[in-house]
Amino acid sequence: MLPSKSTAVISSNSMNPATTLDPGIGEKFSRRTKRAINHDGSFNVRRRGGPHRHDPYQWLIQMDWWPFIGVVVVFFGLLNTAFALAYLALGLDNLPGVTAPHNWWQDFLSALFFSIQTFTSVGYGHVYPGSNGTGFVSSLEALVGVLTFALATGLLYGRFSRPTARIHFSHRAIISRRADGLPCLQFRIANQRSNILIDLRARVLLKTVDPVTNNQQYNLLPLERDFISFFPLSWTVVHDITPDSPLHGLGPADYEAQSMEVIIQLKGYDDTFAQDVHARNSYTHDEIEWDRRFIRAYEVGDDGIAVVDLDQLHLTEPLEQ
Amino acid sequence: MLPSKSTAVISSNSMNPATTLDPGIGEKFSRRTKRAINHDGSFNVRRRGGPHRHDPYQWLIQMDWWPFIGVVVVFFGLLNTAFALAYLALGLDNLPGVTAPHNWWQDFLSALFFSIQTFTSVGYGHVYPGSNGTGFVSSLEALVGVLTFALATGLLYGRFSRPTARIHFSHRAIISRRADGLPCLQFRIANQRSNILIDLRARVLLKTVDPVTNNQQYNLLPLERDFISFFPLSWTVVHDITPDSPLHGLGPADYEAQSMEVIIQLKGYDDTFAQDVHARNSYTHDEIEWDRRFIRAYEVGDDGIAVVDLDQLHLTEPLEQ
Amino acid sequence: MLPSKSTAVISSNSMNPATTLDPGIGEKFSRRTKRAINHDGSFNVRRRGGPHRHDPYQWLIQMDWWPFIGVVVVFFGLLNTAFALAYLALGLDNLPGVTAPHNWWQDFLSALFFSIQTFTSVGYGHVYPGSNGTGFVSSLEALVGVLTFALATGLLYGRFSRPTARIHFSHRAIISRRADGLPCLQFRIANQRSNILIDLRARVLLKTVDPVTNNQQYNLLPLERDFISFFPLSWTVVHDITPDSPLHGLGPADYEAQSMEVIIQLKGYDDTFAQDVHARNSYTHDEIEWDRRFIRAYEVGDDGIAVVDLDQLHLTEPLEQ
Amino acid sequence: MLPSKSTAVISSNSMNPATTLDPGIGEKFSRRTKRAINHDGSFNVRRRGGPHRHDPYQWLIQMDWWPFIGVVVVFFGLLNTAFALAYLALGLDNLPGVTAPHNWWQDFLSALFFSIQTFTSVGYGHVYPGSNGTGFVSSLEALVGVLTFALATGLLYGRFSRPTARIHFSHRAIISRRADGLPCLQFRIANQRSNILIDLRARVLLKTVDPVTNNQQYNLLPLERDFISFFPLSWTVVHDITPDSPLHGLGPADYEAQSMEVIIQLKGYDDTFAQDVHARNSYTHDEIEWDRRFIRAYEVGDDGIAVVDLDQLHLTEPLEQ
Repeated sequence: MLPSKSTAVISSNSMNPATTLDPGIGEKFSRRTKRAINHDGSFNVRRRGGPHRHDPYQWLIQMDWWPFIGVVVVFFGLLNTAFALAYLALGLDNLPGVTAPHNWWQDFLSALFFSIQTFTSVGYGHVYPGSNGTGFVSSLEALVGVLTFALATGLLYGRFSRPTARIHFSHRAIISRRADGLPCLQFRIANQRSNILIDLRARVLLKTVDPVTNNQQYNLLPLERDFISFFPLSWTVVHDITPDSPLHGLGPADYEAQSMEVIIQLKGYDDTFAQDVHARNSYTHDEIEWDRRFIRAYEVGDDGIAVVDLDQLHLTEPLEQ
Repeated sequence: MLPSKSTAVISSNSMNPATTLDPGIGEKFSRRTKRAINHDGSFNVRRRGGPHRHDPYQWLIQMDWWPFIGVVVVFFGLLNTAFALAYLALGLDNLPGVTAPHNWWQDFLSALFFSIQTFTSVGYGHVYPGSNGTGFVSSLEALVGVLTFALATGLLYGRFSRPTARIHFSHRAIISRRADGLPCLQFRIANQRSNILIDLRARVLLKTVDPVTNNQQYNLLPLERDFISFFPLSWTVVHDITPDSPLHGLGPADYEAQSMEVIIQLKGYDDTFAQDVHARNSYTHDEIEWDRRFIRAYEVGDDGIAVVDLDQLHLTEPLEQ
Repeated sequence: MLPSKSTAVISSNSMNPATTLDPGIGEKFSRRTKRAINHDGSFNVRRRGGPHRHDPYQWLIQMDWWPFIGVVVVFFGLLNTAFALAYLALGLDNLPGVTAPHNWWQDFLSALFFSIQTFTSVGYGHVYPGSNGTGFVSSLEALVGVLTFALATGLLYGRFSRPTARIHFSHRAIISRRADGLPCLQFRIANQRSNILIDLRARVLLKTVDPVTNNQQYNLLPLERDFISFFPLSWTVVHDITPDSPLHGLGPADYEAQSMEVIIQLKGYDDTFAQDVHARNSYTHDEIEWDRRFIRAYEVGDDGIAVVDLDQLHLTEPLEQ
Repeated sequence: MLPSKSTAVISSNSMNPATTLDPGIGEKFSRRTKRAINHDGSFNVRRRGGPHRHDPYQWLIQMDWWPFIGVVVVFFGLLNTAFALAYLALGLDNLPGVTAPHNWWQDFLSALFFSIQTFTSVGYGHVYPGSNGTGFVSSLEALVGVLTFALATGLLYGRFSRPTARIHFSHRAIISRRADGLPCLQFRIANQRSNILIDLRARVLLKTVDPVTNNQQYNLLPLERDFISFFPLSWTVVHDITPDSPLHGLGPADYEAQSMEVIIQLKGYDDTFAQDVHARNSYTHDEIEWDRRFIRAYEVGDDGIAVVDLDQLHLTEPLEQ
């Protein structure tokens, strides 16, 4: 859970009231690294050595749909080919009902069709296991088949029920200016889905890299508002650049020199999944526009219903000087 | 999680101690909008443009049972019709066992029955694939069939296990008066289900619309009590209209002029689902009755068991002046 | 979530610093009620009127195993009997392969066996649908069958994966005495399962009934310790009866006159279910023993492993005066 | 949830501001116990007496994969053998289609193959139930079969979707020294999986055993930082040995005399499982090395991507004096 006070991300037991914050990404580096977080929320990190665990479940749950379907089809094909070859090795004479002319391709197809009929438990029975050998192999295949579809059931449910937030971020963060003249860092988000996010919280970190030592520093950027109760429309997240802000007094050249990256972490409760969902993103220094303001991205229709336009989420206009 | 102190919904990092609160529903509108939240908990918001994601899983999980059954039947019918047409195209001669007189409707039915027997993996076998073509198509259909039922399993489980609160709200909120004469806003809730909700929390926002600018403002209404440990009976939620309250000194005409809407958010732990459940509702200015009090909605039976009457939840009586 | 400070269960927005607490069980009653919470954690509450929702999923998830198996068998039997009667109505001549002598009982059995073979998708095929009528009905039954087993899969998973705590409570609460002479209320709990509960929290309420008005009052009883990090052995929960305690200065007769009931709510994270689990219980005034102390319920085996004895959890001895 | 302030694990209602903490593992023991927590996170505790609940679901969910597959195969074999014996008892004459020479082993195999074809709902039909007796038994077996695979589906999903953290701990904790000379206790962790842990929290307890009375005491060790936002690389957890620390002024001999054990509890949100995951470990006094420092375990590749080396997680070097 995100702490209700953003400052709580800094340990309460710190000896020195911490002004910097290492979010577990590391602090001292031999050279410049890429951005910490990519736009899809992944990290630019690799793992090496040790008892590294590849988790097939996680892999199958997280891959896109087309590769997943490919994996299913290939797995289904290979397993049935293997069983078909086993039936061929036992001899098709032991599968009464196979009547087609005997040549190797037709034999293989006959065995493959029988295998698939067994694996999926269709079992028409016009071909059936006529010996102990094919009886054993087909019994094993039937068990493997039902367990495989038990697995597939779990995987499909796992894929569908995995709670994911589809938060649409504005392409650029901007440096804008409040009515009282105070500059502020802003970006804008909207929900791509028609579901409702509740109790949405935002946390924003600033990553800076020392131009000389390459050491990385992480600072929490306090937000004008870090919590909203409901998230049906768009939300403009604002960090006021007060004299306390690590961004105070810096210009575009400083941002670039320090390889600044604004890291965003969102968390909310999704009514559909009935679970918390998370989203991440970051803006690097070249994804921050100066002296702009966002144009309102929603309007009210004739029927009194507010309409949010996801395409307009990115629209900004210059500040009048 | 709802913060344990209701004031925490206002960002702790606000530059100016916030008295208003934008719950992500928007603030500045070109014209009057409908109520923010409908009685079924939905928002009066539409989405447009952008990479809008229709999520079939969410759609199938959230629809009512009769439409869902309709979708299942139509999907089952269309898919089997398609496979039946494929078998027809390959020729019924390749499905040995089909013995009925050949006319197009009877042929189609024969192919359809074979298709369904394959799709559901019943596979009686009195009709069976007798060629490579029907062998391939029936193998594909068997795979599609078992994967479809794997999907259906996940969908049915997802529908049933989705934690939903069935909170019964009184039809009207009322403006009542405490024993010491202080006016207060009240509404009453009960649990429609026989399950037990634990650690139920309430949060109440007031939406007001500026009659001139149409700007919307959201204020948190502090509650006499915003948390109860157990929720077996009914709960009367009370906001005392102290001089600090945004409702202080206002009458029914003011409520209407400002298009006031009282927005309620409930959250509790459901013992059956073993998860948190949420409920939302709102009362618009014309759903608030003045100078009423609620009549007790529970009594004790002869067996010493308390009985809550959901029909009496709405009953109020005039305050004696 | 239980608040980290127990006092937080009393609303932070109370006008008067609350000393009493209505946990949603009701406050004013026309007559004496039974105990609030039974030993199995259920409440003595009924519901009446309104759009009362019976939720079959909750019912099937929460019932004991034997009744559940009974429901499954009866449902399976009735549905197959219905389909068998449909096949009989269509005429067994339309189910080629039925060869047994025709009498009504044998006919019914033949139709029933065919129905079950279709419902479970076994489909041997020695009997098969030989007309459009039986073709349609058997197609419908095959669809109903696979969807039924999809449902059963979800129900079985829901029953097994439902996180439940098996907390063993001492049969009696006791009034004991600290080393410094201060009296205290104690009860003892242990985990019946071999799983580990983490971050276990306890909250204890005292229900008192006014002997004259029958009004009920609920007070939070502060605990010497309301949180433990790990719960492998037993835990003695202690409320010190300081002058601030609502139990201060009261004797057994007062407990009975006020129908006192000590209500306990436990919450912890279960490592196996990977979810929070909850437990409830209560001790009524006649389940509280005076001037006792608990005997230690664990010892260290020869292998250096601590052993907790669930039978000794209840053992107490008199306080030496 | 771990409290945001570590001190909150000590009850806020304590009469005396607690300096020690009993984490439910027990306090007073007749003799020395083994370490409290093993490296696999299990506790050295046994249970005895009482209504001890063996939960088959938990057992099947938590066992390793090979034993689980063994249980499945044995269960499948025994159940089908039982049904095969039932068919034999009814007489193979009642299973038309069995054509093999009749000897007991071949008869048993024929019955077993028919049983498996029924259990898995393959039902080729070359053998089929030809009497009421075999009709009943095969109907029962088909029902048991589909329900068994419904169960297996739930178990497989439960095993895969159970959220587990694979945190790699350094083999040794070390006593190191800060730049300002203050000694500190350190250990290092990394994520074995390529998933991302968010909002990772650490809590560290110190167990000490009184050399004379064998009484155990648990103290919370405050951490330099007990929370990180993201956990892609490694994290060095640090307890500064200030004058307030229970470790202040102690040397290796004291650690051994008091059978010190440093107990670690980790909790974070796992993006893949979309749930919180927990990890536990402990270092006993002989697993703590003195006057060492950790060598950095990550570096930056040519492509600007940080690489963490799990093998180097354990590497330390002597402090220069």
